[in-house]
Parts: sequence; structure tokens; C-alpha cells
Amino acid sequence: VTFELTRDYLDRFAEAIQRRDAEFIVSSLHGVDSADISNLLYEFSTDECKYVFEILPPEVNAEILNDLDEDVRQRFLENFSSEEVAAFIHFLDSDDAADILYQMQPKRREEIISHLTDEEKAGNIQDLLRYEEDSAGGLMAKELIKANANWTVRQCIEEIRKQAEKVEKFYSVYVVDGRDRLLGRVSLKKIIISDDKAKVSDLYDEQVVTVETHMKDEEVARIMQKYDLEAVPVVNAKGKLLGRITIDDVVDVITETAEEERQMMAGVSDDVEEDDSIWAIAKARLPWLIIGMIGGILGANFVGLFEKEIIVIPAVAFFIPLITATGGNVGIQSSSIVVQTLASSNIFLDSMLTRLTKGFLVAVVNGSILSLMVFGAIIVINKDQSLAVTVSAALFSVVLLASFMGTVTPLILNRFGVNPALASGPFITTANDLLGLAVYFSVAHLMYNL
Amino acid sequence: VTFELTRDYLDRFAEAIQRRDAEFIVSSLHGVDSADISNLLYEFSTDECKYVFEILPPEVNAEILNDLDEDVRQRFLENFSSEEVAAFIHFLDSDDAADILYQMQPKRREEIISHLTDEEKAGNIQDLLRYEEDSAGGLMAKELIKANANWTVRQCIEEIRKQAEKVEKFYSVYVVDGRDRLLGRVSLKKIIISDDKAKVSDLYDEQVVTVETHMKDEEVARIMQKYDLEAVPVVNAKGKLLGRITIDDVVDVITETAEEERQMMAGVSDDVEEDDSIWAIAKARLPWLIIGMIGGILGANFVGLFEKEIIVIPAVAFFIPLITATGGNVGIQSSSIVVQTLASSNIFLDSMLTRLTKGFLVAVVNGSILSLMVFGAIIVINKDQSLAVTVSAALFSVVLLASFMGTVTPLILNRFGVNPALASGPFITTANDLLGLAVYFSVAHLMYNL
Repeated sequence: VTFELTRDYLDRFAEAIQRRDAEFIVSSLHGVDSADISNLLYEFSTDECKYVFEILPPEVNAEILNDLDEDVRQRFLENFSSEEVAAFIHFLDSDDAADILYQMQPKRREEIISHLTDEEKAGNIQDLLRYEEDSAGGLMAKELIKANANWTVRQCIEEIRKQAEKVEKFYSVYVVDGRDRLLGRVSLKKIIISDDKAKVSDLYDEQVVTVETHMKDEEVARIMQKYDLEAVPVVNAKGKLLGRITIDDVVDVITETAEEERQMMAGVSDDVEEDDSIWAIAKARLPWLIIGMIGGILGANFVGLFEKEIIVIPAVAFFIPLITATGGNVGIQSSSIVVQTLASSNIFLDSMLTRLTKGFLVAVVNGSILSLMVFGAIIVINKDQSLAVTVSAALFSVVLLASFMGTVTPLILNRFGVNPALASGPFITTANDLLGLAVYFSVAHLMYNL
Repeated sequence: VTFELTRDYLDRFAEAIQRRDAEFIVSSLHGVDSADISNLLYEFSTDECKYVFEILPPEVNAEILNDLDEDVRQRFLENFSSEEVAAFIHFLDSDDAADILYQMQPKRREEIISHLTDEEKAGNIQDLLRYEEDSAGGLMAKELIKANANWTVRQCIEEIRKQAEKVEKFYSVYVVDGRDRLLGRVSLKKIIISDDKAKVSDLYDEQVVTVETHMKDEEVARIMQKYDLEAVPVVNAKGKLLGRITIDDVVDVITETAEEERQMMAGVSDDVEEDDSIWAIAKARLPWLIIGMIGGILGANFVGLFEKEIIVIPAVAFFIPLITATGGNVGIQSSSIVVQTLASSNIFLDSMLTRLTKGFLVAVVNGSILSLMVFGAIIVINKDQSLAVTVSAALFSVVLLASFMGTVTPLILNRFGVNPALASGPFITTANDLLGLAVYFSVAHLMYNL
């Protein structure tokens, strides 16, 4: 039943565009989901896509736009006049329309809104644009079905019939009082199985989870996931029903958050994809590489202070990579578990002290095991007891210190409102490299000069 | 409206358990979502939780169990007889029941199923247990509302009324033929606004996205996300309707996949959380640390081959951390973008050659910039031209090589069916450390001996 994009079809489609074969394009795309069409269009140039847009119905174009990657969409829309963009946006839900307009210059935004023929929609979109894009207000749609508590089920159904065209998907009817304050919800299931004459006030469920407009999108995601919600109503501080957020938008938030975190861990500073330009990719990677390089130069100058020791016992230099690598690994392991806990919904987090103690004990266990193994390996391979003592003692201290740094850094970042995941990236590796070198050469200095 | 877990309430609740004050417990938890109750119970011992379970209604207990962490749940359930567990499972949807039973020994599993009074449910659960846990079959629930295409809307509503008790949440009615083959779906909205006498065959939408039982859970997640679905029907190869997967289960799959990937990147081998035992945490971290350590020992022996060079020009040793750190950073950056592309839904991936060429060019850009900066820094700080040439030439080569390794490793892992995210962790760092050292000392050897 689903559309499968084959190389064959792609070739035929390309040919059809060349020959301006509108009939093939329209008929072969009939009934195909907009997500599939937008995937298909990624393979074509702007001009080719513009031609496809000319011959497809505007409501389909609107859905395709909605499914396109943000960057691609913005670039593509620059080829259309404000009036043309308004014609697409007319067919979108207010939240999807606002998402597109968020990315535009205020002047262009207002032009587009002024061309909207549906004044209610224009008002809704303008309302939404007032909220932060990454807040519940920025995530919600104004389209929803609400019923007054005094209505009967029949009146409810009448309202649904009236609204059905404007609200594409809904799972329940929100029940409000005369002042639009949210009282509860009735599921569609309940409406279907209830008598037409039943009063909404007797049917609705008061236990309804809500979010407030100012809430961060990640918090909304956490709540919807926790309570297994497919939609959540958005209210203001006075409990007035303003909109609703559906799970598909929240799934995107969850995916983006995970992606962002992964990029931070990988030391990529910007949102880049493999099909971006070489310069864009290089630029996104450079900042962390430079930070690492500066760390490396500082490290070199620090190690330089121990030039004498290295000349006398060059074997000390051999184990520099072991020390820095282990420090880096332990630091990332420790920070990542803290980041995970900070992101989870655990309410009563362990106190700072409990956490540090536990991290310390884990570090003692692993530090001891690793040190013993390295001690044995150096005795067997290098047959040098002082070296074995130096390296293993330094390794043990580095594991403890790196674990401490890895635990404390994300907590501090979090305290200052910075994304703690930043601490799982090259940041902690660079810091631990320097720290590791300091510990290692201090131990070596003590060992060989006493 | 939502329950807020305060330290105050927690203290009162603890006191109530001590005093066996069933009334306070039952009344204060009345109407509270099971997700909140399970969060609350994490703060108490097994015996205390058992007492709470004794006084709460079994359907609430079932939901609490469903919301508990898998590990915690399994340990907790060991305190109940098979008959008692069956009494909880009776109130769960088949997929949630199967999730609990998947974790148990086959004998215990069969005992519990044999105690189920609802034979249809027992059969459904046994059906589900036949599928892989991480497949669409393992993810689906058997509970759904289906209607024959020949029915009227009224018959549909009758069926919903009949099934309403068993199927907690549903968004559409699946339409089947006489042999249970899926024909399409009708949304609840359409049922509500259609005339009672209308035929289902005239209402249903044929364009319905389906998944097959053998599909991997991550593939199901990708499809539901792509098409913004709140539920997807599961069919077998012949198109027979077997179950449906709802978005809440898929949100969990998405979160778990992201979590798993993050752990791989952080070099934590097992699913551990901050509140696990010290030994469990230490054990989960040890394997990658040991691999890193073995890499470090190999590296030390490799650097040992260049003992003479280090004695003559100790400054060469100073820059070891710079070389290994940059190699590690570049490797992770390159691998992470490949992993991201492999996980995304892009259909026509760039060819291997295009990809390597692009990665190579990005590496040339960043390698040049970094090398120039390091060259300048060494000239200014160390005032040693040969050293500057050695380090910057080695750095440039290391950036190219690490980028190549970072691009190729995940592609190779993916080809062999191994999760490519593994390549973004300590694996690639260790390999790049060794590679970087080899390049660095080869360049140094050439520079100072020619």
C-alpha cells in the first residue's frame, strides 16, 4: 500500500519533468503521502521542484512543504512571492504555518500573513508567533475541538461536524466553562458510545494533564512521554484553554534533542548533515578541534617543563597516550551518566555528596583494576619496577580525578543553565588530557627525584 | 490538576506506611496517574511497596507495574506468586502483558499464563510472545477495533460499544474483508460525523500505512515518525490484520535507541543508571577502559621504538597529546556524521566514493587550518623550525587518516550488521591514538634522520 521510491521511478519522474509531462506526474503522485513526495523532491533541483509545485494541487504542496527539512524549505520558499506562500500556508494547521514563518524576516512574515484570506487563521498564526519557538506555546496548534460543559453529546457532535474540516486529527473534545477555562476532556470513544442526549458535564474526565504556554518543549515531551499522551491541552496561568500539542510534534522534539546531544558529544558545533557543503561541514567541526589543539599546545608546554626527566628516563614519555586516553574515557563515562540522570524524570535526585561518593567508589574499583593490569604489563614487558609504580600510581590518580571532573562539570553547567551534554564532548577530553599530564608528570617527578 | 510529588507528601506517605494507615494511602492516591505512583514507589523498599500493592485496587497495581522500570519491575515481581502476577496482568493490554512476560523464565511465564482467567487474553499474550521482542510483532497489541467493510456505521458503533472495555485507546477503526485482510481505516471523526446508515465500504480510506510483523522496532519508529501516525496496523505477509502499534510504545523505542547510542559513544557497555550498584556501574564501564588501556600499552611499546629520537629531541614527546587528541576528535566527528546519515531516512545515499571524497576534502580544509596554527604556535613559542615542520606535517596526516577511519569504520560495521554507533565510541579513539602515534613518529624519524 505504501509508496516505494525506486531508482526506476526516479528516472521516469526525471524524464517526465524534462518533457513537462504533467499527466504522468499528477497521476503517479495521486494518493502518495506528502512525506514520500518531499523525499522524492530532494533528488531534484529548485527549478524542477517549482515545476512540480505548479501542477500539483495547493493543499498537496502545503503538506509537502510541511514535510521538507527546515533549511531546504526556507531556501525553496525564497523562490515564491509572499502571496504564493500565503496560498500554501492557507492549507496548514496554525502550528505548522507558524513553524514556517518563524524562520523568516519579520517584514516577509507580515507580508505573507497579510495575504491570508482566512482571517481566523491569520489571527491564530499571529498569536502563535508571540511565543518562543521552543516553548509549549510555540509548539501548540490553535485548532482543537472544544465543547461547553452544558452541551449535550448531540451538540458536541454538531460542533465536531462544523470543525471537522479545520481540525485534521483529534482524539478528544476539550470541555470548557463559559470563560473558556479548561474543565476536562471527553474521549471520542466516549462520545461515540454515549447517548445523544447525555450531558457533556456528566461524561467528562476531570483528570486531564495540561501544560502551560511558557513550558520548554523538552519538558512537554517528558510529560507526554510519562503519561503516554497522544495530545495535551495548553492553558495559560488562569487555566484558559489556548491550544493543544499533538504527539507527532513532540516526537520531532525528542529526536532533535537526542540529535543535538549527540552532536555535542561528537564535538560538532552546528546542525550539519552529510549533504551540506564541504565548507559548512568543516566550519561546524573546527571550533572543537581548535580548542583541542590549544589544549594540546598547553600540554606540550607543560610536558616541556619535564624535559630533564624525559631525557633521563624516556620510557616515561611512552605512556603519555595511555594516561591521556584513559583520563578521557573515564571522564566521558562519568559525565554521560550524570547527563542521563539530569535528563530523566527522577524527582528526588541523589544529593551532590552521595553522587560524588558513589562516583569516587566506582573510580576506585576501576582505577585499581586498571592500575594492577598496567603494573603487571610493565613489569612483564618493560621489566622496570619504578616505571611500573609511576605509571600505575599516576593512572589510578587520573581515573579518580577524571571521574570527579566528569561528574562535577555537567552538574556545574546545568546549574548555570548550560546544556550539561556539552560536558560529554571534547570539552571534558581536553580538560582531562591536561589534568592527566599534570598528575602523571608530578608523580614521575616525585618517583625519580626522591 | 497534575500530581506533584513533594518532600512533604513523601514524608507523610512514609509515615502512613509505617502506621499501616490504608485510608490515607488509598484516598491520597485516588485519581493520581499510575506514572506518578510508580515514581513515588521508587522511594520505598520492596516490603513497603508490597504493602501499598495490598491495599490498592488490582487494576491500579497493573498500571503501576506497567510504568515501572523494567529491572525494578522484574525484581519486584519476584515477591509475588504466579497467581498474583496473573491477577495484575489480567488488567493490562496484551502488549504490555507480553513485555512483562518476555523478561521471565519460560516456566514462570507459562505458570502465569495458565492462571489467567480470560482465555482470549491468554491466547493473545501467547501469540505475541512468539515474536522477537524488538520486532513489530513484539511491539504490537492485539486489542483493536475492526469492522467488516459490509457493515454500516451503526454496526461499527455497536462493535465499538462492545469492545470499548477491552480497548483503552483507539483513534480509528480498521476495515477488513471476510478473511480478516486489512482493506483500510475509518477515523473516529468520520464515524462520528457520518450517518448511522452509511456503509463502511463507502467511508474507509484505502491509503493506510501498515507494517509487517517481522519489521524491526526502529524501522517501525521511523515509519510512524515519517508519516506522523498515532497508530499503525500490523499485518502478516498475506495482509491479514494481526494487531496495532500505538505511538506511546514507539516513543519509548525512540528514546531507548537514542540512549543506547549515547552509551555506545560514552563507552558504557551495559544499560546502567546512576542508582545501580557501584559494582554494576564499574563493570559496565570496565570493558572499554581495558580496551583503551591495551591500546595505551601497545602505543607505549610502539613509541619505545623511537627511544633514541626522544632522547636526542625530547620536544618530540611533548606533542604526543596534541596528536592523539586531535586524531580522536576528528575520528569521532567523522564517524558521528556517518552514523547520523545511516540512521536517517535518506533513500539514495551518496556512493562510498562521493562520501570518502567529501570527507577527504573536509579533512584537507580543517587539517590545513590546524596545521598552520600549530606551525605558527611552535615557531613563536618553541622557536624550533624542524619541530614545527614535524608536528604540523604529522598533524595534517593524522587529520586525514582519522577522518578516513571515522568514515569507513561505521560503514563497515553497518555492512556486517553491527550497530555503526559503536564506531563513535572509545573504539575509534583507541584506533586513532595508535594510528596517530605511528604517523607522528614516522614523520619525526624521517625529519630528523634525513
